[in-house]
Amino acid sequence: MADVPTDAPEHCPGTTSEQAGKSSACQGCPNQTICASGAAKAPDPAIEEIKLKMATVKHKILVLSGKGGVGKSTFSAHLAHALASDDSKEVGLLDIDICGPSVPKIMGLEGEQYVEDNLAVMSIGFLLGSPDDAVIWRGPKKNGMIKQFLRDVDWGELDYLIVDTPPGTSDEHLSAVQYLSGAGIDGAVIITTPQEVSLQDVRKEIRFCQKVQLPVIGVVENMSAFVCPKCKNTSQIFPPTTGGAQRMCEELGLTLLGKVPLDPRIGRSCDEGKSFLNEVPDSPAAAAYQTIVQSIKDYCSSNATPAPNSH
Amino acid sequence: MADVPTDAPEHCPGTTSEQAGKSSACQGCPNQTICASGAAKAPDPAIEEIKLKMATVKHKILVLSGKGGVGKSTFSAHLAHALASDDSKEVGLLDIDICGPSVPKIMGLEGEQYVEDNLAVMSIGFLLGSPDDAVIWRGPKKNGMIKQFLRDVDWGELDYLIVDTPPGTSDEHLSAVQYLSGAGIDGAVIITTPQEVSLQDVRKEIRFCQKVQLPVIGVVENMSAFVCPKCKNTSQIFPPTTGGAQRMCEELGLTLLGKVPLDPRIGRSCDEGKSFLNEVPDSPAAAAYQTIVQSIKDYCSSNATPAPNSH
Repeated sequence: MADVPTDAPEHCPGTTSEQAGKSSACQGCPNQTICASGAAKAPDPAIEEIKLKMATVKHKILVLSGKGGVGKSTFSAHLAHALASDDSKEVGLLDIDICGPSVPKIMGLEGEQYVEDNLAVMSIGFLLGSPDDAVIWRGPKKNGMIKQFLRDVDWGELDYLIVDTPPGTSDEHLSAVQYLSGAGIDGAVIITTPQEVSLQDVRKEIRFCQKVQLPVIGVVENMSAFVCPKCKNTSQIFPPTTGGAQRMCEELGLTLLGKVPLDPRIGRSCDEGKSFLNEVPDSPAAAAYQTIVQSIKDYCSSNATPAPNSH
Repeated sequence: MADVPTDAPEHCPGTTSEQAGKSSACQGCPNQTICASGAAKAPDPAIEEIKLKMATVKHKILVLSGKGGVGKSTFSAHLAHALASDDSKEVGLLDIDICGPSVPKIMGLEGEQYVEDNLAVMSIGFLLGSPDDAVIWRGPKKNGMIKQFLRDVDWGELDYLIVDTPPGTSDEHLSAVQYLSGAGIDGAVIITTPQEVSLQDVRKEIRFCQKVQLPVIGVVENMSAFVCPKCKNTSQIFPPTTGGAQRMCEELGLTLLGKVPLDPRIGRSCDEGKSFLNEVPDSPAAAAYQTIVQSIKDYCSSNATPAPNSH
């Protein structure tokens, strides 16, 4: 039951992406022509189109976690901020969490898609009439939206494209990996929190990466410890009962990129749409972020197996 | 784009559930016969089958949140423990988080499906060879699994069935509501944390409930505050920058069931598969849980609009 082949087509091949956004009224199988011609097994032409579109994007990084609420969007936003702090770099941030797009809020954007001249953001959050609007979509429509984000958005020349994902190992993750398969992905940054309930889901995500042959750049442990602002006592609010991300990385042979302590100012910065790295640059959490970002930059620049389309 | 009709069929009608689990090799549209007969628009017969199966289940409660990592599974587990502490009640807990099933770990179950004589649990976690196995499934297969959980599991006579869900407003949520539509659902308990980034997603979940006409029993705010074990100073680790769940409930006319403070012993109990309510019964967090559970019991027993099949 588990670990089904991830390259298997949908049960009704083609609906995943081709039919997304079209009428759902029953007019017979929307793929009758394709099926009859035997072409249904051909790769989705969008993969080739996205490969061409992404020819101007040097590095593509997925931010993943099996678990929700561990700080994927917060990390993605701060990775984007940190990379874009070098004016000579062009950075893009794509939010493919269709049902829970947090990136616009965290980046302080309301309807705008540029944070800085060299930092562009795309999210379904920009397309909603109100931030409270719900996107009540099943998988095929979500997949169609992700295809549009990758193929139809004018990303231009980018040094880095960061893709923030929802929790899980389902439609969004499969679609992102499949659509970007022609263009090549540098790798995934895996986010977790210290407790075993989180690590258990994160191991599933790592298994996913192995299955789809996506390199893991490394693991970030968020919410690692909390220092009381009054007495400076350190508390493990989410106790690493099984050794936390450190032991998991040792066991699985992965790089632990760093541990980011719990700091209420991170949540506050996110709610206010400000960069924590600019707000409290001298904090231990900001220092941890910067070390992690440097490791990711080093990984990308020394990437021995560049994307097929790298230039 | 947002708020699409939630009762719209899948783009290829019927694949959602009927074809789940069957071969994905292309043999033409799996619904050709149904489509040709015009029967594709008929309701899924599983709804009626599940209505019959659920005739022996008095109360059905969904635990929802737009946001991940806010404590849905932790709350679901403790709601189940608390309800089952009354030996005269029969309780079931169903985990429909297919890609990130945390319930077996939190309930301390490895392959077993009964915690106590009067507390039964079902989760895809029981069906995995290893807890690290990933379930890499798109929507239709997840929906098929949820149907099996509701229709094919022998739940028996239950006073309460609690359904723990993944984050979002997508396949799992639509399927649970649709499959249980004949049987009737008492309502949903919404879980959030205090910060606006979480509340924003939770408002989407509340919009979802409105769209599918699912009553909201009330809102639980988790991780509300942290009391330093050394100096007793209170920190707002996830600051309620926009007034937290309290203001959201006031604005939306919802019941705030309670606030559960951050307590590292909750995470530890979850990792160890123990009930926090038994481990630390005299803690403020346990007291908060008990108050919330009592409100939910009161809601169910005074439910003026009993499920169509209630007995």
